[in-house]
Amino acid sequence: MKRILFVMTALVAACLSASAQQALGPGSGLVSPEINPDHSVTFRLRAPKAVTVQLQGDCVPNGRADMVERDGVWTLTTAPLEGELYRYNFVVDGQSMLDPSNVYRFRDVATWINYFTLSAKEGDKGWYYEVHPVPHGTLSYVWYDSPTLAKLNEKDAFPRRLAVYTPPGYEENPKAKYPVLYLLHGSGGDEDAWLDLGRTVQILDNLIAEGKAKPMLVVMPNGVWFNQAAPGAAVNMFQPTMMNSRSQSTAEVEESFPDIISFVEKRFRVAKGAESRAVAGLSMGGRQSGMLALAHPKTFGYVGMFSGAATVKGYESAIDALYAAKPKLIWAGVGKDDTGVRANTLELKAYCDAHGYPITYYESDGAHTWVNWRIYLTTFAQKLFK
Amino acid sequence: MKRILFVMTALVAACLSASAQQALGPGSGLVSPEINPDHSVTFRLRAPKAVTVQLQGDCVPNGRADMVERDGVWTLTTAPLEGELYRYNFVVDGQSMLDPSNVYRFRDVATWINYFTLSAKEGDKGWYYEVHPVPHGTLSYVWYDSPTLAKLNEKDAFPRRLAVYTPPGYEENPKAKYPVLYLLHGSGGDEDAWLDLGRTVQILDNLIAEGKAKPMLVVMPNGVWFNQAAPGAAVNMFQPTMMNSRSQSTAEVEESFPDIISFVEKRFRVAKGAESRAVAGLSMGGRQSGMLALAHPKTFGYVGMFSGAATVKGYESAIDALYAAKPKLIWAGVGKDDTGVRANTLELKAYCDAHGYPITYYESDGAHTWVNWRIYLTTFAQKLFK
Repeated sequence: MKRILFVMTALVAACLSASAQQALGPGSGLVSPEINPDHSVTFRLRAPKAVTVQLQGDCVPNGRADMVERDGVWTLTTAPLEGELYRYNFVVDGQSMLDPSNVYRFRDVATWINYFTLSAKEGDKGWYYEVHPVPHGTLSYVWYDSPTLAKLNEKDAFPRRLAVYTPPGYEENPKAKYPVLYLLHGSGGDEDAWLDLGRTVQILDNLIAEGKAKPMLVVMPNGVWFNQAAPGAAVNMFQPTMMNSRSQSTAEVEESFPDIISFVEKRFRVAKGAESRAVAGLSMGGRQSGMLALAHPKTFGYVGMFSGAATVKGYESAIDALYAAKPKLIWAGVGKDDTGVRANTLELKAYCDAHGYPITYYESDGAHTWVNWRIYLTTFAQKLFK
Repeated sequence: MKRILFVMTALVAACLSASAQQALGPGSGLVSPEINPDHSVTFRLRAPKAVTVQLQGDCVPNGRADMVERDGVWTLTTAPLEGELYRYNFVVDGQSMLDPSNVYRFRDVATWINYFTLSAKEGDKGWYYEVHPVPHGTLSYVWYDSPTLAKLNEKDAFPRRLAVYTPPGYEENPKAKYPVLYLLHGSGGDEDAWLDLGRTVQILDNLIAEGKAKPMLVVMPNGVWFNQAAPGAAVNMFQPTMMNSRSQSTAEVEESFPDIISFVEKRFRVAKGAESRAVAGLSMGGRQSGMLALAHPKTFGYVGMFSGAATVKGYESAIDALYAAKPKLIWAGVGKDDTGVRANTLELKAYCDAHGYPITYYESDGAHTWVNWRIYLTTFAQKLFK
C-alpha cells in the first residue's frame, strides 16, 4: 500500500505540474498559481493600470507581500512551501480581488478566497487535503425535520439540511453498522464549512484508505438554529455573517440535537450507543461539542473541542456527571497564540487534572485558523472508535 | 396546495426583502444587489479610485450598462425585471470583478459569476429556480467505476463521480421504484453544471411539490471521458476549459454509458426498461443525448435535446431503428437566435417529419444560454414518465 501510494503521489504531482502549464481562466492567458518543482509557488495577475498589487494569504510571511510588475503582469514567487492548503487573494490599489486565473475558490462565511493544495512529500498534512486515487465515500445533502427548532422558530414545518459523509464500503456491506462523528462548524459557518476549507471528505477518504481511521459516518449539521441551510439551499438569499451572542447560544443546539441523532440513526445504518458516537467542532462548534456532552452525558463516547472548550464555572457537576459516564476520549486542541480560547481550554484541563479526569490536551502553533482545525480533525479522527 | 404555496411565496418575498436590508459582505457596508418592491434591482460597489464602472449581465439591456458614482459608491438600478435567475459582474476600469457584497456565486466552466434569483409572481419561471418550503429531495455525490473508460484512459482504477438527485419520498417508500432522467452537461461542464446554473434540484423539488412532474431520480454524470470529477474533487487541480473536438467526441460517451446505467440500477431503487429512462442534455450534452439514443435505440423512452441535436447525415438508419423501438418522446428545444444549432435541429425535425416520426420541436427566444436550458428542463421534466 505504501508503495502504491508513493507512485500515486508522484502521479498526482505530475498531473498537478502538467495542469499548471495550461493557460488558465478565460482569456487571462496566464498560469496562476504555478507550483514549481521546489514547491515554491508563482502567482501572476495582468493589471496594466494598477499602481500597487499585493498578494494576501498564508503562503507569504506576515500574510502580505508586494508583487512586481513587468509588461502589465504582476508576479510573485514564494519561498518553497510545506504541504498544506493555502488561501490567498490579490489586493489591487487597495481593493481585494480574486485571482481570475484560478477557478479554485471557497467561501469562508461571507468572504470568497482562492486556494490551492500541495503536498511536499507523501503523507504530509497537505497530502491529506488532496484528492488521491483511493476509494471515495459518498457525500449527501439530506433534509430532516427538527420538531424542537420548528417550535423555537414558530414554524410548523422547518426542514433543515445536513451534509453526510458515508465511508467507502457503506453500500457494499449492507449489514455493517458504522459509528458516527457529528462535526460542528464555527460562528458564521454552515453545513458546507467542514467540506470546503475543512476538507473533511478528503481527510476521511485518505485516513481510511491508509487504515489510520475507522470507516465512519461524518454528519455536518447547520448549527444556526434560525437557519435551514447554507446560502443557495435556503428559502431566502441571506448573506451570512459572524453571529452575535444570541445566535451563538448553545441552548438551542443542546435542546435540539437529539432530533439530529434520531434522524441519523433512522436514516442510516449506524451503530448506537455512546461508544459509537463522537462529537467535535471548531470555535463556536468546539464549545458546543463540550456543552452538548455535558447536557447529554451518556450520548457521546468521544468529544473533540477544537479552539473552543466547555465552560467550567457553573458546570462542575455536569463535568463530574460526564466523567461518571466514563467517556472514551475527551480531547481539546488549541493554538499557542489563541490567547483567550487557550485560557478557557486550560481552565477545563486544570479542572479535569485536579479531579483525575483524563483529558487529552493538544497544543499547536498558531491561533484560530483552518490550518489548525484541519490538523485537529486529522489527529482526532485517528483516535475514534478503536 | 395552491393557497399554501401562495402564502409561502409571500413569506419568501418577505424574507428576501428583509435579507436585502442587511449590510452584506465583510466590511463592504453596502447592500448589493437589493431587490426593490417593483422588482427592479439596485447594485452598489465602493470603488473611489475607479474611473469607469460597468455592470455586465443579463439584467440590463444589451448585457452592459454604466454605473454612476457618488461619494465613491457606484450605483445602478435596473428596470423592473421578470422572474428569473440573473447573472452579473462588475467591470472596473476594464477589469472584470465580482460583487464583494454578494456571496451568491457560481462557476460556469472557468468563469465565476454573481447571481440572484427573483420571482415576480407565483409560478413564474424565477419561482421554480428558488428554494421554497416544499419537501426536498436528497443530493448525493457518488463514485462509480467505469471499466470502459478506465480502459480508454489506460488506467486500472479510474473511479468517476456522479451527482444524483433522489426525490422526496424515496427514503420513506422503501419498496417504490423510480424512473431516472440522465442529464448531461455541455462543453467545459461537469457534474456540478446542472446543479449550479441549471438549478436542477430546485426545479425538480418545485415541480414535484406541485404535482407537475413525477418523482424521479436525476443522474448527472461527468461527460468528459478523461476527467474523473469536477474541480476540487479530482486528483489534479486542473483548470476547466471549453473542449476541443477530440474531447467532445461522443464515441466514448456512447460506448461507456451502459457502465453508468448498470451502476445506477444496482445502487438505487429504480425502475428498469426504456419507459422508465430518459436522457437529456444541453449543447454538447444535447447532441450526446441524441447520439446515445441512436447508439442504444431500446434504452431510453424519452430523449431531450437542448440546444444540440443528433446528426442526421449518415445516421438515417439509426434514426429509423430508434423510432422502430417506439420511443415515448423525442423532444428538441432550441433558441431562435442559435443559428447553427437551430439549423441542425431543424434538419432532424425535417427528417422525422418526412418519415412520420413524432418529434416535439420547442423554439424559444434567445440563443445558447442557461436561461433557455432551465426553461427546457422545466418543460421537458413535466412530460416524463406519464
